[in-house]
Amino acid sequence: MKNFISNNPTKLLFGKGVVSKLGSFSKRLGSKAVIIIGKGSVKHNGILDAVKEQLKSVGTEYVLFEGIKSNPIYQDVDACVSIAREFQADQIVAIGGGSVIDSAKAVAVGFFHDGSVWDICSGGIRAKEALPILCVLTLAATGTEMNMFSVIQNDETGQKLGWGSDLVYPKVSFLDPEFTYSVPKNYTSYGISDLIAHTFEQYFEPTKAPLSDYMATDIVRLAFEYGRKAVDNPTDYESRANILWLSTAALNGSLSAGKTGGDWGVHGFEHSLSVLYDIPHGAGLSIIYPAWMKVYFSEIESKLDLMAKRTLGENSNAKDFIVAYEYFSKTINSPTRLSEVGILKADEDKIVENLKMNKVSGMFFEQNEEKYREMLSLMW
Amino acid sequence: MKNFISNNPTKLLFGKGVVSKLGSFSKRLGSKAVIIIGKGSVKHNGILDAVKEQLKSVGTEYVLFEGIKSNPIYQDVDACVSIAREFQADQIVAIGGGSVIDSAKAVAVGFFHDGSVWDICSGGIRAKEALPILCVLTLAATGTEMNMFSVIQNDETGQKLGWGSDLVYPKVSFLDPEFTYSVPKNYTSYGISDLIAHTFEQYFEPTKAPLSDYMATDIVRLAFEYGRKAVDNPTDYESRANILWLSTAALNGSLSAGKTGGDWGVHGFEHSLSVLYDIPHGAGLSIIYPAWMKVYFSEIESKLDLMAKRTLGENSNAKDFIVAYEYFSKTINSPTRLSEVGILKADEDKIVENLKMNKVSGMFFEQNEEKYREMLSLMW
Repeated sequence: MKNFISNNPTKLLFGKGVVSKLGSFSKRLGSKAVIIIGKGSVKHNGILDAVKEQLKSVGTEYVLFEGIKSNPIYQDVDACVSIAREFQADQIVAIGGGSVIDSAKAVAVGFFHDGSVWDICSGGIRAKEALPILCVLTLAATGTEMNMFSVIQNDETGQKLGWGSDLVYPKVSFLDPEFTYSVPKNYTSYGISDLIAHTFEQYFEPTKAPLSDYMATDIVRLAFEYGRKAVDNPTDYESRANILWLSTAALNGSLSAGKTGGDWGVHGFEHSLSVLYDIPHGAGLSIIYPAWMKVYFSEIESKLDLMAKRTLGENSNAKDFIVAYEYFSKTINSPTRLSEVGILKADEDKIVENLKMNKVSGMFFEQNEEKYREMLSLMW
Repeated sequence: MKNFISNNPTKLLFGKGVVSKLGSFSKRLGSKAVIIIGKGSVKHNGILDAVKEQLKSVGTEYVLFEGIKSNPIYQDVDACVSIAREFQADQIVAIGGGSVIDSAKAVAVGFFHDGSVWDICSGGIRAKEALPILCVLTLAATGTEMNMFSVIQNDETGQKLGWGSDLVYPKVSFLDPEFTYSVPKNYTSYGISDLIAHTFEQYFEPTKAPLSDYMATDIVRLAFEYGRKAVDNPTDYESRANILWLSTAALNGSLSAGKTGGDWGVHGFEHSLSVLYDIPHGAGLSIIYPAWMKVYFSEIESKLDLMAKRTLGENSNAKDFIVAYEYFSKTINSPTRLSEVGILKADEDKIVENLKMNKVSGMFFEQNEEKYREMLSLMW
């Protein structure tokens, strides 16, 4: 086990009706909230109204910023910062999935920064202060509701970059599984693919950390079990609740205890696909990971073998796991080949150029042009 | 899954040499520390000196309170409160195992209470303020280094009571596995029995919470594996590190996600033994739990069966697990019968009287005089 720090200041309220506590937390933070939402589905399913009701009940005024894209761009963040400043907001209420919450984190630090938030997201400038954030999660996927990370895109430079600051842990996150009932099947699946990929990124780090490794296999096993059920029966509470908690647990620090923090090379690879083709992040991940496992097979065989034994049964082996994982993705209709998301072999050079420009590599499993092409050859 | 809150404000620094960061955290809290220790072993193994060095390096003055007993009593806490007040302490540095840290938590709230701390520990008065606590853990066992709980004893009334307050989460806990090298074999074993029992208390709650339940089986499996190794080879870093992290993870909230909080009936039973006979808590637990499992077998069979399959192998069943658990306790010399700790059958009525006086019962598995006697009949 490596030295590590276990610390997560987010308070997470999980279960039916938890949003009824939002007002009291808002009141402790101040009286002026900027509400951030995505394309507007929360306006139609009652979630936005429920939050507004909470804010009104404690006298918190609010202004609404809508239109965050599923691959969120820094320009929307900058626009929201202007509105938040003009409104003199003292808190952010993010309602949505990963893209909305990641944008809220960028708004939180952008609020105190002169200039574009891209200065911070691209790593040039370190955030020194942040507005507090309340999150109402509506999509099980990224885990951003209980961590310090955010991913923001810059279409002009062709970059999609992860950044983090311990200032942007949400103060309180409200996770009601019923709020995910209306997520369409495809985005439910991409969210499941995302949480599985987060687990893999940490699991395959070669450092031996037995409890973290066992827990990673538990998450994958339960994601297979409840993932199928949630896709098949979107209003089954137990399935939605399990997937929701798994997505948080996969990236709230639990899986990195005793480790350095994970590889994240597949995520880097996927960010290039998202920035070039605007495909859903989880869809990209379920395409890349099987190829990555095959290319790095000899280095990760023992880890794949343990994963197989603990998710499929004691008689299964490393190769069985890759087959089962691809099969699982197919059953939930998360893609496993680039053609399924409309990316054609003729684009190989264009993809490789973006990967090179972004210097995509893992922390433990080095990638380079040869590896990029080897992986891509398995994705057609 | 039940509604739950996931929140743990303690910052935990884990690994070799982490105490070298203590000074910087002390400085943020103020400049006057009361150091609390137990019977003095940390004076001889260099740990106390290392902490003093850290405090001196940042100009924190300190006063030492020593002599906390392994079953800590409220009188020592009250005495320490007087010293802390006279010294005008602004922080507590607890160096030791569960008894020292539990006492530190009581000092932290007693500091702001007029009257004996027993008023708070016995539940009559709610704590409103607390001194901040830094913990240097020297024994893997109770998990108190990353939770809001404490257990304090009153010999006059024959009570040993658990209490909690979210004011007493340690601010920062320093866990260096090498600091546990000098723990004698028997206390190493009792600590392992304790962490396993904490896992059981939460695991056997009948509420279905799949990730928490799987994780509980992981902790027990790894405690069996690394527990034997740590007892056999006290200076093996990986074994000590694993046991140390398992003991924290077993009671820092992770296993209660999706649950109500656990049964805790066996702990209640053990507190009566500790208060009557001053036996080590973990030793009492490894005696009582097998008896409890046999008495409540029909209600917990499916949970025992899952535990068996995930710790022993797919062909094992509920009864196999009880046998394996008792066998494990024997291999690490943690007792499984009352005679091993010098408690004789002639004392049955005396024990039952204390259990009745303390109204010992579980949250989910009800105990009464008949059950007490049935369990005791299996402990001789």
